Amino acid sequence: MKPLVSIIMGSSSDFEVMQKAAIFLNDNEIPFEINALSAHRTPKEVEEFAMNCEKRGIKVIIAGAGMAAALPGVIAAMTTIPVIGVPIKSSLDGLDAVLSMLQMPPGIPVATVAINGSMNAAILALQILALSDIQMNKKIHNHKDGLKNKIIKANEELSKIEFKFRVK
Amino acid sequence: MKPLVSIIMGSSSDFEVMQKAAIFLNDNEIPFEINALSAHRTPKEVEEFAMNCEKRGIKVIIAGAGMAAALPGVIAAMTTIPVIGVPIKSSLDGLDAVLSMLQMPPGIPVATVAINGSMNAAILALQILALSDIQMNKKIHNHKDGLKNKIIKANEELSKIEFKFRVK
Amino acid sequence: MKPLVSIIMGSSSDFEVMQKAAIFLNDNEIPFEINALSAHRTPKEVEEFAMNCEKRGIKVIIAGAGMAAALPGVIAAMTTIPVIGVPIKSSLDGLDAVLSMLQMPPGIPVATVAINGSMNAAILALQILALSDIQMNKKIHNHKDGLKNKIIKANEELSKIEFKFRVK
Amino acid sequence: MKPLVSIIMGSSSDFEVMQKAAIFLNDNEIPFEINALSAHRTPKEVEEFAMNCEKRGIKVIIAGAGMAAALPGVIAAMTTIPVIGVPIKSSLDGLDAVLSMLQMPPGIPVATVAINGSMNAAILALQILALSDIQMNKKIHNHKDGLKNKIIKANEELSKIEFKFRVK
Amino acid sequence: MKPLVSIIMGSSSDFEVMQKAAIFLNDNEIPFEINALSAHRTPKEVEEFAMNCEKRGIKVIIAGAGMAAALPGVIAAMTTIPVIGVPIKSSLDGLDAVLSMLQMPPGIPVATVAINGSMNAAILALQILALSDIQMNKKIHNHKDGLKNKIIKANEELSKIEFKFRVK
Amino acid sequence: MKPLVSIIMGSSSDFEVMQKAAIFLNDNEIPFEINALSAHRTPKEVEEFAMNCEKRGIKVIIAGAGMAAALPGVIAAMTTIPVIGVPIKSSLDGLDAVLSMLQMPPGIPVATVAINGSMNAAILALQILALSDIQMNKKIHNHKDGLKNKIIKANEELSKIEFKFRVK
Amino acid sequence: MKPLVSIIMGSSSDFEVMQKAAIFLNDNEIPFEINALSAHRTPKEVEEFAMNCEKRGIKVIIAGAGMAAALPGVIAAMTTIPVIGVPIKSSLDGLDAVLSMLQMPPGIPVATVAINGSMNAAILALQILALSDIQMNKKIHNHKDGLKNKIIKANEELSKIEFKFRVK
Amino acid sequence: MKPLVSIIMGSSSDFEVMQKAAIFLNDNEIPFEINALSAHRTPKEVEEFAMNCEKRGIKVIIAGAGMAAALPGVIAAMTTIPVIGVPIKSSLDGLDAVLSMLQMPPGIPVATVAINGSMNAAILALQILALSDIQMNKKIHNHKDGLKNKIIKANEELSKIEFKFRVK
Repeated sequence: MKPLVSIIMGSSSDFEVMQKAAIFLNDNEIPFEINALSAHRTPKEVEEFAMNCEKRGIKVIIAGAGMAAALPGVIAAMTTIPVIGVPIKSSLDGLDAVLSMLQMPPGIPVATVAINGSMNAAILALQILALSDIQMNKKIHNHKDGLKNKIIKANEELSKIEFKFRVK
Repeated sequence: MKPLVSIIMGSSSDFEVMQKAAIFLNDNEIPFEINALSAHRTPKEVEEFAMNCEKRGIKVIIAGAGMAAALPGVIAAMTTIPVIGVPIKSSLDGLDAVLSMLQMPPGIPVATVAINGSMNAAILALQILALSDIQMNKKIHNHKDGLKNKIIKANEELSKIEFKFRVK
Repeated sequence: MKPLVSIIMGSSSDFEVMQKAAIFLNDNEIPFEINALSAHRTPKEVEEFAMNCEKRGIKVIIAGAGMAAALPGVIAAMTTIPVIGVPIKSSLDGLDAVLSMLQMPPGIPVATVAINGSMNAAILALQILALSDIQMNKKIHNHKDGLKNKIIKANEELSKIEFKFRVK
Repeated sequence: MKPLVSIIMGSSSDFEVMQKAAIFLNDNEIPFEINALSAHRTPKEVEEFAMNCEKRGIKVIIAGAGMAAALPGVIAAMTTIPVIGVPIKSSLDGLDAVLSMLQMPPGIPVATVAINGSMNAAILALQILALSDIQMNKKIHNHKDGLKNKIIKANEELSKIEFKFRVK
Repeated sequence: MKPLVSIIMGSSSDFEVMQKAAIFLNDNEIPFEINALSAHRTPKEVEEFAMNCEKRGIKVIIAGAGMAAALPGVIAAMTTIPVIGVPIKSSLDGLDAVLSMLQMPPGIPVATVAINGSMNAAILALQILALSDIQMNKKIHNHKDGLKNKIIKANEELSKIEFKFRVK
Repeated sequence: MKPLVSIIMGSSSDFEVMQKAAIFLNDNEIPFEINALSAHRTPKEVEEFAMNCEKRGIKVIIAGAGMAAALPGVIAAMTTIPVIGVPIKSSLDGLDAVLSMLQMPPGIPVATVAINGSMNAAILALQILALSDIQMNKKIHNHKDGLKNKIIKANEELSKIEFKFRVK
Repeated sequence: MKPLVSIIMGSSSDFEVMQKAAIFLNDNEIPFEINALSAHRTPKEVEEFAMNCEKRGIKVIIAGAGMAAALPGVIAAMTTIPVIGVPIKSSLDGLDAVLSMLQMPPGIPVATVAINGSMNAAILALQILALSDIQMNKKIHNHKDGLKNKIIKANEELSKIEFKFRVK
Repeated sequence: MKPLVSIIMGSSSDFEVMQKAAIFLNDNEIPFEINALSAHRTPKEVEEFAMNCEKRGIKVIIAGAGMAAALPGVIAAMTTIPVIGVPIKSSLDGLDAVLSMLQMPPGIPVATVAINGSMNAAILALQILALSDIQMNKKIHNHKDGLKNKIIKANEELSKIEFKFRVK
């Protein structure tokens, strides 16, 4: 089994946020790997990682980082595989991480998702994989169909709340 | 009894904020309904809801949403009934939700109130209903007259605090 | 002819922004009035204005203001008619005006629209008037139907742009 | 004993922040009064208050408010006495209150101090009173001389912390 | 020739920003289409568009929008194809558009790129297409190799600037 | 003639903003002085200035500064005279200057006015002087009475604008 | 033993943040001193400190401050030794402190590091000392080599987490 | 002549801002070099540059970058020489660049200066060089002594402005 998605983060403390990506991929039976790498603490390892991803068969990279979140951009600089950036909130409400990965210069995009939005990063990865794989395509359609359920449940919960002038 | 005001929110977790709107309407004996709908998770249901509101006799829609809060705008796009937007704080202090509903393009307004300001949304709904209904008009005037009370109470509480050089 | 909508602004320089509200109301043959009043420079006149609006038959007030934009809130404090606030950009990209009218305390809402969004304020006024007036209801439905035209024109313009690999 | 300084706030919940102003004035034996008034809930009472302050011998008004903090500006609009504004933090880190009182239009200033900075408001009031009263002048000089003490204490505390390579 | 990438924007005025995406796709001989659609002005057309993209063979959608930029999120709600969002600057320095598309709720991601970063959106589209198409893969590697040239030119320009104490 | 108000700024380029303070004081026949001093470039001169202001009979200091605007705070640290801070816009829309003077620590207030609000600083100075000087008191009341005129003029201008459905 | 680095802070409460600088210097056996000084409460002591640093053999000053954080800039104004500023978070997420020290006017730089980033300030101090001292140079290289360890540990921790579809 | 300071920027368009650093170094006869390098477009060249700086005798690196300004941090990750970051304004008023270099993670500092503050970066470089070089020490003292002149000139200019009530 070779991993199709690579989840990267700057430290083990980021795992609390990033695990939602892992859980989504696991639940959808998409082979993935998880590693910690830092653009600032281990630049050479980041380089080696980024240069080899394509050869190793990785299709999408999900990179989570906080503060001056250079990791996704630095990886994107050294590969042609799509890099999805997850801004992790640690100060300034996560706005520093958002701007550090969103505002990439012309030529090297990072596909940025919501602050702490690692599950959405995994969904986006599946959307990309689904473009050329029928099994994946079924999975993303299943996911889509399941979105309603949260609302159905919400309405069930809300329906229990009684107000005299509430009309049901 | 047909509802005049429709309260909409994206998930049951929003009810904690949105219940103040329900309580205000209930206290003022204004028939209303509460539902969960999501612009992003159940777009078709949102469409159906928005297209039918006018026919069903709804006069005002109160839509609460957080983050990329598209719900009020998307509803406003498909009805001519006034839509009041309540930005719900969940990240970035609620500024993301404010801008997502306040900054509507020319042609489709959303009447945006304060962050988590669902009670004010309900008051605004009553102000609108009061324009063409004498009973409602009495209610909004009663509400207005009652506003002083909070200040009177505040002064009573403050009057108990003794400082040697405080003059009463 | 008695005015149904009252447009208020803090100075004549605000008219450049606020005229879009006047033009929309005029085009839709909705009687309106325009005046300059300042919460800070003419507080008594503001009070007199706000206290008498309902009696004079005004149904909706559109108040534009910039900077520490107290005008809509101060008027809302003294009337039960719906007050629509238009934050006018003059410094800090208009964020000061947004927060000064959006963040109203519980009890006294201001229906805030986009920065410089005076046309949307007028549309919202028409939506409110349309709730109890069949003529107005037709007008707001006409407005809604007309929104597509801008997109149709946009597509016509875009269709003229030739790229070799563009598929039409 | 007639009050020289009037402390105003929008609700009794603001007292937690505003009491530091009261304590400073009390400690310096400056007669003052405390009241709750709201620009939005009790506009007439605010007007009456503001119009009579000068006659009653008040020299400085300290007005604390949060959110769309119109209170200091509305009072300043109706008196010639200096009004010191204290932005109270309740949402958006207090930035809404700062901009609502700082960004006053030309003609009517509010002397704004730090977020929740009610003690500084009282010190500023004393600085103003000290300009024409020798007793007050001594008090403000005493306050100034006392500022060092906090630093002396800080250094004493810091001096207890031992590091092998710390040089004292 | 069937389009692989669909470029969508809210009005023809957005074309000034969005044309960089079109030019990049055209230069790389990737078939694409361009249309104007508005989540707020033409919601039904947006729905029809989004529901049919997959069937029509579109692989990636690039959606540019300004202000309360609901377009990419609303499309993403109705398709499983990856949606790349381009926040277009029109007020508040583009921060409103960024937050309106970045901060999508769990379940429906939008791959957001830099403010006005439409070229990067097209490059990201090519990166995605390149995962399952050898021709596209060559193109994205060519693009990557070409990035150095801008820096080489920059150094040539900089090398012409003489300072007495500059060492070359 | 001895100056009562001292206007200080960091460079001659600030005069464009600060001249409104000078003009207001001059028009109201209040003796003042103007000097350039920099907390960062001429710290000793700032110290000498601040230490001697009270002795020289200065009653109020108006200090304008931009960016990391330490000037008003540093002066306030060395005098007991009220210091009014004028944040001058030069980058970040003036927000850097606002925060650098507004957010003073407990003990040393700066009375901050609006961004580029130098006229309001002068009015505030007059309000302070008016507390103990009958001539000044008349002047500030005259100023107050004159505020209406701007609105009267605004209404005159607005009254010239004809709309078919405008009611006058 | 003479101190090479001087750590300065505005109050003893800042020590919680600033101690990381002390610990780093201590662990690397770099003689240092710690003092509390306030630009606003003890301006003369700040002046004396700043004027004498160079003579006393201090090579780098690390100054931590919050809110209107004038301390690093005021010290930098009176010495030619490099001053490293540490913005301490106490309100507005620390943005006030960042802007108060980052946005220094031309002529007097402050080397600003991350919010609460006192350890980085100490590392920067060591980088500067290492330029002219072989022992220090070894220490900074040791520090650099040690940075990987945090990532190695992170990977060890991450490797313990089992997912069925995780590939290791 | 070997360079002591290395000025790096992401593109030739940055030279307009960065030339002030070059001019200051040149005027002070400090040997320097200028190059363009991009963390995102030429990551390998950045690595090679950073790894060799110390060997080549470079003492300080000045790195200017805009948007997601990773350049100074990426260089700092691969050298022990002090790196001074200059945030260059190109969007969001330069706030994106500030946060991308200021908010570095623990372990790898970047000495950040003001937005577009390249001259201050050069002065800081000289301050660092002056710690171990008597000639440089004289230069930085000369610079410091010269700072007053700007204020003296400002006062000369201001002194020419006549107001009837201005006291000189």
